[in-house]
Amino acid sequence: MTAKKINLTVVGSIALDTITTTKASRREVLGGSTTYACAAAALFTRPGMVGVVGEDFPVKHKQKLQRRGIDLAGLQQVPGRTFRWSGVYAADMNNRSTLSTELNVFADFSPQLPDAYQKSRVLFLANIHPDLQLEVLRQVRQPALVAADTMDLWINTAKRNLRRLIGKVHMLLINDSEARALTGCGSLLDAARKINTWGPRYVLIKKGEHGCMLVTKSQLALLPAFPVQKVVDPTGAGDSFAGGMLGYLSTANKIDEATVREAMLYGTVAASFSVESFSLEKLAVLPRSELLRRLRQFRGMLPG
Amino acid sequence: MTAKKINLTVVGSIALDTITTTKASRREVLGGSTTYACAAAALFTRPGMVGVVGEDFPVKHKQKLQRRGIDLAGLQQVPGRTFRWSGVYAADMNNRSTLSTELNVFADFSPQLPDAYQKSRVLFLANIHPDLQLEVLRQVRQPALVAADTMDLWINTAKRNLRRLIGKVHMLLINDSEARALTGCGSLLDAARKINTWGPRYVLIKKGEHGCMLVTKSQLALLPAFPVQKVVDPTGAGDSFAGGMLGYLSTANKIDEATVREAMLYGTVAASFSVESFSLEKLAVLPRSELLRRLRQFRGMLPG
Repeated sequence: MTAKKINLTVVGSIALDTITTTKASRREVLGGSTTYACAAAALFTRPGMVGVVGEDFPVKHKQKLQRRGIDLAGLQQVPGRTFRWSGVYAADMNNRSTLSTELNVFADFSPQLPDAYQKSRVLFLANIHPDLQLEVLRQVRQPALVAADTMDLWINTAKRNLRRLIGKVHMLLINDSEARALTGCGSLLDAARKINTWGPRYVLIKKGEHGCMLVTKSQLALLPAFPVQKVVDPTGAGDSFAGGMLGYLSTANKIDEATVREAMLYGTVAASFSVESFSLEKLAVLPRSELLRRLRQFRGMLPG
Repeated sequence: MTAKKINLTVVGSIALDTITTTKASRREVLGGSTTYACAAAALFTRPGMVGVVGEDFPVKHKQKLQRRGIDLAGLQQVPGRTFRWSGVYAADMNNRSTLSTELNVFADFSPQLPDAYQKSRVLFLANIHPDLQLEVLRQVRQPALVAADTMDLWINTAKRNLRRLIGKVHMLLINDSEARALTGCGSLLDAARKINTWGPRYVLIKKGEHGCMLVTKSQLALLPAFPVQKVVDPTGAGDSFAGGMLGYLSTANKIDEATVREAMLYGTVAASFSVESFSLEKLAVLPRSELLRRLRQFRGMLPG
């Protein structure tokens, strides 16, 4: 099952999401941070997905992930119910409220990396509890790039271990309000520079529909978002961005500031498809040619 | 006084602004849409300023504008008090409330373009009542580019004449919320495309700290804002953006989509200096070399 080399390992949540926007709603659709990230990354490489689901996880979802070219050797299926999240979006599609979170099988999750994953070139610690992220980090052998994402919940409830984790990764992906909350800095630039001093060479601030910013000790790179005509469901946009970016990087000739800046374009375009449908409806079946076509279109919108 | 050729004429308000931010406040400092736009444009050309001030307008302000290289042949000084505006900014520096507006001499203003201005290559109708913008438009002889700005006040109180004006200009500059209010479109892209169909070839949506977007029938161009370390006073940012952009364009070899896209970079950098101080404190004395240095720095942050 994992005969092929795994360039990218992604650990994170796998969820059944119940989502309500002002236009529509969906019950218990496939979601989760590793799910979105792997679906986007699979446009570039065969990512290894690490996570846990319960007995109730539909076979059709597994089949969908496999058809997308995701390696499932790291996916545990255990007795109990799959993790569930439910949320509602405001009309502007930027603000959302969590209605409920059921950890279920995630409460006792202990990630185990298959052998083939332990030598991954790139490791993405997608959004889950920092303790789990640290546990995975202990199982890998010096990846060229370790990237981590997080969320306000861990900043509020597990800040000490989150700070420990941040000190051990090369890249932190974080959204604008979380970067401010984590550092106490009002200015995003100050926040990013403070995180740089904690360890990560690459600090990637995600600003949703306003694009993203890469801050390193020597560089600052800005990228607008792709202007999506109609946002259907923003869930997973950040994970798709990360997955597209890291999927591209996992197969790049080298990983440095120039290739990370190039990778941001790929991540942005992957995220733009993700938000055009609920769940993985688009991302699970998107042909690579369509992604590349939009990438050309996007380049045409940028200066230079 | 206007011996030199005037490439760019700017009509708009000249104000004494009283501004409060969470950090500081200033009483009756030099402001107004044409003031900011001319100060930014003067980095590229000798702009002709059209507007009105009262007897109380300090001589030192006139001297400051002249030293910046602004032509004042179109500036009327009449009996009465100068236009005054007072506002307060929220902590995020994005939202502001108007505390008071005193039209004073602007109530009876009738713009008169000096001969030398009537053949300007570029005309900028900065933010004032659409009737005054239309009045100025009748006095010029086919400029290569007529650009107009507006504000929510005129969308709410003078929509019919604003629509008439928009039908007669090549370029409309408008901020994101105003574009939505003017068109009734929730999507910025839809709003911009609708305005395109009303006449203007170039629709420039200003998004403040999130940059700007140019929409034409065939193209879409995105540009992030320059990341300013510390915003002191956002007043006049949009006018400085327009002034920098149109000042550059007024001396460009040709005016087409490619040069407008290039000009957006100049406008963005001019605006970034404007917000770093109250009033024109920075913009009035900024050396061109410093603007060009930041422009190089900005290009380094952009993809491509």
